[in-house]
Amino acid sequence: MAVYTQVPAEALDAFLSRYDVGTLVSAKGIAEGVENSNYLVETTQDRFILTLYEKRVAEADLPYFLALKTHLADRGLAVPRPIRDREGVALQTLRGRPACLIEFLPGISLTEPTPAHCRSAGDALGRMHVALRDFEMVRPNSLNLAGWQRLADACGARADEVSPGLADTIAEELAFLESGWPVDLPHSTIHADLFPDNVLVRGSKVTGLIDFYFACTDIRAYDLAVMHTSWAFSADGATHFAERAAALDAGYAMSHGLSDDEQAAMTILCRGACLRFLLTRTYDWLNTPADALVTRKDPLAYRRRLDHYRAL
Amino acid sequence: MAVYTQVPAEALDAFLSRYDVGTLVSAKGIAEGVENSNYLVETTQDRFILTLYEKRVAEADLPYFLALKTHLADRGLAVPRPIRDREGVALQTLRGRPACLIEFLPGISLTEPTPAHCRSAGDALGRMHVALRDFEMVRPNSLNLAGWQRLADACGARADEVSPGLADTIAEELAFLESGWPVDLPHSTIHADLFPDNVLVRGSKVTGLIDFYFACTDIRAYDLAVMHTSWAFSADGATHFAERAAALDAGYAMSHGLSDDEQAAMTILCRGACLRFLLTRTYDWLNTPADALVTRKDPLAYRRRLDHYRAL
Repeated sequence: MAVYTQVPAEALDAFLSRYDVGTLVSAKGIAEGVENSNYLVETTQDRFILTLYEKRVAEADLPYFLALKTHLADRGLAVPRPIRDREGVALQTLRGRPACLIEFLPGISLTEPTPAHCRSAGDALGRMHVALRDFEMVRPNSLNLAGWQRLADACGARADEVSPGLADTIAEELAFLESGWPVDLPHSTIHADLFPDNVLVRGSKVTGLIDFYFACTDIRAYDLAVMHTSWAFSADGATHFAERAAALDAGYAMSHGLSDDEQAAMTILCRGACLRFLLTRTYDWLNTPADALVTRKDPLAYRRRLDHYRAL
Repeated sequence: MAVYTQVPAEALDAFLSRYDVGTLVSAKGIAEGVENSNYLVETTQDRFILTLYEKRVAEADLPYFLALKTHLADRGLAVPRPIRDREGVALQTLRGRPACLIEFLPGISLTEPTPAHCRSAGDALGRMHVALRDFEMVRPNSLNLAGWQRLADACGARADEVSPGLADTIAEELAFLESGWPVDLPHSTIHADLFPDNVLVRGSKVTGLIDFYFACTDIRAYDLAVMHTSWAFSADGATHFAERAAALDAGYAMSHGLSDDEQAAMTILCRGACLRFLLTRTYDWLNTPADALVTRKDPLAYRRRLDHYRAL
């Protein structure tokens, strides 16, 4: 939630002259995304997001992310389109950082989605999966089972500093998932992080899917599982809202839908999604100073979600 | 450079319903102002800045700042107007913080102003001083001579941790200013912090004067002195640009101008302005952890400016 790389107006003005987008009217650094520096840029023609990629995004992955967003935007999905300069180049360098000028999408992110929002968001996920059928680039998911094991090893017994018994819970859950993870289900490009923060809405209409920087190739239905664990619970993870969960499934069924095998695997996929966020939050919790300006997200909100699915 | 208080979209939507401004379309936390949380809010009718006042702004001062901005906006100055709700109230509470919805002004802040920008900005300061002739509210300047003395005492010998000999330089300069500070010059409401960051421009036209949170009642010509020390030097303070300085004076003369007494006092007023920023930066430097996400501003950039005026 910070702007790490400052871009003086003069440098921004020069940067924009590479594009056919008009001239600079206004620029505000925005506190969006923990990974990158972002500016909301207004020109005489339109509004854009300017992203400077900071060290947490691997530069080698950027062509993948930009191709993915362009593919989806070309197919009419509400996804922020990377803008090309006059020479057709989208990925640029600015202030020594990889940078991209991106379409601005209106809409707000909800913290308490209604079932109507869940239906629209589930439908948007399904439409994204349809549009990705002919997207051929591949990016392995570094936060797959093997990645979870690495994170669990890195946290080790210190997980108990977050909450007593957490290290054992993680180890048990990893063993369970390793024995039954549904690796034979259809794979696809997935968003892998479609939390309510990453969906823009107006009213109950989805106006944007954003923040594709965890996108990768993995089990397609896992994408819906991530949505279940993030959309169908109270923020603290203590309350599951069955109506929101049903609306996610109903929305997804409108545009894509689950096979019987995928449907049968949803509980274990949701357990995997819970463990993924439990692990990254636990790791960040143990490795972020308590007085840092970055807000540490509570790992226990995902332990409670995991408990919900373990009890099923 | 952060958003300290998070405002969920639902809370923002409810907040906006107090006003006749349309409904929420988009909201982005912006990394502007070290003192407050700011959102760039778009509604179906217009764009606004929503400011939540954090602890560094004294709540008791807010009615003064809002009245000042309203006074200037009413007189046609390019100043962000506080928006009143349907009951005529501008100062609200949101998420437990004092909050105000404020007009959005286009324009960018420069880091390397040209003489043409300096002329426009000097003129804008003069027009502001004209418009303030009938503004009757008074706010003492806590960063006056007595305030500088308190800051110098708080830094004490530790100022030498910033740069060897700095504590002595500060003590000498304070003694000089105390013996000759031109207290009899005309007083007025002043902005007191009109750095290039706080002036929005398009081309060479000033489209906004912003960030009035140091505004106070003090020697009117001191406002121009603050501009001299911030607009007429390179960022590191090592180079003085005489052409920019002349353009500031020429611009100010277009709309207001200095009396002979004020003109004669400009060097000592500039020395005071240099000491003020040297002291606040030294204090912040000594009291901000080196690893904090907040960027510490280099105090020596103001010691070099001070050296320029001491050599005259």
